[in-house]
Amino acid sequence: MASQNAPETESILRRAPIESGVLRLTLNDSARRNALSDDMLDVLSKALADAQSDPLVRVIVLAATGPAFCAGHDLKEITRARQSDDRGRAFFTSTLERCSAMMQAIVNHPKPVIAEVAGVATAAGCQLVASCDLAYASPQARLAVPGVNIGLFCSTPMVALSRNVGRKAAMEMLLTGELIDAARAVEIGLVNRVIDEDALTEHTMGMARQIAGKSSMTLATGKKAFYHQQELPLDEAYAYTAAVMVDNLLKKDAEEGIGAFIEKRPPQWSDQ
Amino acid sequence: MASQNAPETESILRRAPIESGVLRLTLNDSARRNALSDDMLDVLSKALADAQSDPLVRVIVLAATGPAFCAGHDLKEITRARQSDDRGRAFFTSTLERCSAMMQAIVNHPKPVIAEVAGVATAAGCQLVASCDLAYASPQARLAVPGVNIGLFCSTPMVALSRNVGRKAAMEMLLTGELIDAARAVEIGLVNRVIDEDALTEHTMGMARQIAGKSSMTLATGKKAFYHQQELPLDEAYAYTAAVMVDNLLKKDAEEGIGAFIEKRPPQWSDQ
Amino acid sequence: MASQNAPETESILRRAPIESGVLRLTLNDSARRNALSDDMLDVLSKALADAQSDPLVRVIVLAATGPAFCAGHDLKEITRARQSDDRGRAFFTSTLERCSAMMQAIVNHPKPVIAEVAGVATAAGCQLVASCDLAYASPQARLAVPGVNIGLFCSTPMVALSRNVGRKAAMEMLLTGELIDAARAVEIGLVNRVIDEDALTEHTMGMARQIAGKSSMTLATGKKAFYHQQELPLDEAYAYTAAVMVDNLLKKDAEEGIGAFIEKRPPQWSDQ
Repeated sequence: MASQNAPETESILRRAPIESGVLRLTLNDSARRNALSDDMLDVLSKALADAQSDPLVRVIVLAATGPAFCAGHDLKEITRARQSDDRGRAFFTSTLERCSAMMQAIVNHPKPVIAEVAGVATAAGCQLVASCDLAYASPQARLAVPGVNIGLFCSTPMVALSRNVGRKAAMEMLLTGELIDAARAVEIGLVNRVIDEDALTEHTMGMARQIAGKSSMTLATGKKAFYHQQELPLDEAYAYTAAVMVDNLLKKDAEEGIGAFIEKRPPQWSDQ
Repeated sequence: MASQNAPETESILRRAPIESGVLRLTLNDSARRNALSDDMLDVLSKALADAQSDPLVRVIVLAATGPAFCAGHDLKEITRARQSDDRGRAFFTSTLERCSAMMQAIVNHPKPVIAEVAGVATAAGCQLVASCDLAYASPQARLAVPGVNIGLFCSTPMVALSRNVGRKAAMEMLLTGELIDAARAVEIGLVNRVIDEDALTEHTMGMARQIAGKSSMTLATGKKAFYHQQELPLDEAYAYTAAVMVDNLLKKDAEEGIGAFIEKRPPQWSDQ
Repeated sequence: MASQNAPETESILRRAPIESGVLRLTLNDSARRNALSDDMLDVLSKALADAQSDPLVRVIVLAATGPAFCAGHDLKEITRARQSDDRGRAFFTSTLERCSAMMQAIVNHPKPVIAEVAGVATAAGCQLVASCDLAYASPQARLAVPGVNIGLFCSTPMVALSRNVGRKAAMEMLLTGELIDAARAVEIGLVNRVIDEDALTEHTMGMARQIAGKSSMTLATGKKAFYHQQELPLDEAYAYTAAVMVDNLLKKDAEEGIGAFIEKRPPQWSDQ
């Protein structure tokens, strides 16, 4: 992509101008391997919150510059925090709570979030990929939850990982800490598809634009219902989603969409 | 299959004569792409209920005529319902509740239900495939949850879909609304196997007959326990299934089956 | 492996000398196809309990001699029990409870347990493979839950099976009772990888040694948290694992591991 001269390009999180309803956020702290430092958590959380209420944003793409997609927490920050009187407990607690809140903000976001993974995603970086609704990766992508190698099991990352990936595959990643490649990530369900490196951004942005062409009301309704119903027993899941669909049917965009379908014309969304 | 002259052949749901314990139900409303219209929900629900108490029925196969396996709800019925004073709310509620009840009737049915998918299964049609215990598909089969394209997220279909398919693959289908082919459906766990078109019915009926050769008591016990234990925490699941197995062990057919195995002879089931 | 002259080699469960922190337990009752007889449940449960408190044991490998990895319950024991006044109810209850407790002892064990499957694993034998954290299999391995063939649905085995494997694939195994091969077991997530027969032990022991090189505190913390968080809703899972990680960060081995990583030296675990 051409470099931009807006002030944001200097920041650790690039925010490209919204195009066709797609907000492209690029982790831009390759010197720290795009670690989820205190600063990065701040700007990423804020960007997600802003996008929530911005009607121009319909879909979010999360990308990264440099060889690392995201290396997880900043270990130097963690080590520095040990100097404090409480040996770091307050800092650790706050960091993990903020990081967990950010991951849940992706899941609970009314707009679909797509990861574009062209590099190495480890620990909370792997969790970030797992937390997104969709993920596309280049053949160069590698993923791991390597905390076990430094005495710190990837316990919060595995919340997201184990909700995407079967038990034995997740456990192998967690117990060995080893990197898996993009093809294996597709096999186990952590990534949707591998796309050649030079076509990855085009593919991901294309998927994002395609989804941005749907009604925002419909996307928000469905995404919220998706994650909620998964945690319910079957009968409650049906009672809940049937009610969701009745409400959805009574919305303007369902009437418009169904009408357009029957009349064989493109729908005009009001996002309501 | 040879055409039948029984009155049922004219109906929107064909009911073939039971053969080797297998009831073959064929959606037969290809003019409406086998949509789950009010009428279709009626006859399908009734056929499932009848089969529940019919001792001759040991396994059910669900097939369809025409290029569509099942197109989901009938959009014209939905649009007509908007004319009523409540803008359709009562009709939508009743339709979704009846449809959800029918899907759960498959899951809760004491007899295994197998989908034979030779065409396009979309929305509640895809949900129908997902709700069956097993599914075999021809290479021509295509599946989608395309509600997002008409402003109406496939919220009830995703209850069944997301209990078969990993999160990222399910979300890709739901957010894009695009058709997947049979091979992809196998990859993600929505279908058991792809079988050549001209061998599909033979294969599916063969699987059905094989399963119909087991004790009906055993199948009913196990199927019920399968779906129930999945919703329990591990310790409760074990307490529950251990009790189920003790009861099963004390049944006639377990004594017969184990005896026959030890004596190396075929078992004679009493279905008790 | 060279034969050993220790008394254990005569027993139905061989316990190899601990090597590099790896305890290798070998089911050694090939005359009974390594069935989970009363005796086998006893010695296996005891070996797992002993390993729990033995600081020399860091990882457990579960292997088997003979063509059967494990054939599940001993059907002759079950048939004999029918002679008693209660038609076996007390024996069945006690056997299934003890077997379920043993399977849960693997899941709840603080040390990773790896199955090395070179033969046929059926019924509770398949459950044993599913209950282990990891599983490697030779191309000769075959797995089934064939209880349906003897009138006794594999209801406790399916608790473990269905927590590893998608619904349709699990149901096909349960309803048909048929063996699947090792490649299919990998496809559906029941086994991590297929390894050539003559390299299987070396591979499995290599994986075990690699994992045994991690901090035991970290492994125990993470394994416990893994299975627990899977049963929680997302927000509770994050609250729980965030607290687990804060505690983990304050442990000696996390400080050592992170320090060693930053200083680019190998860590020295205290297992605390």
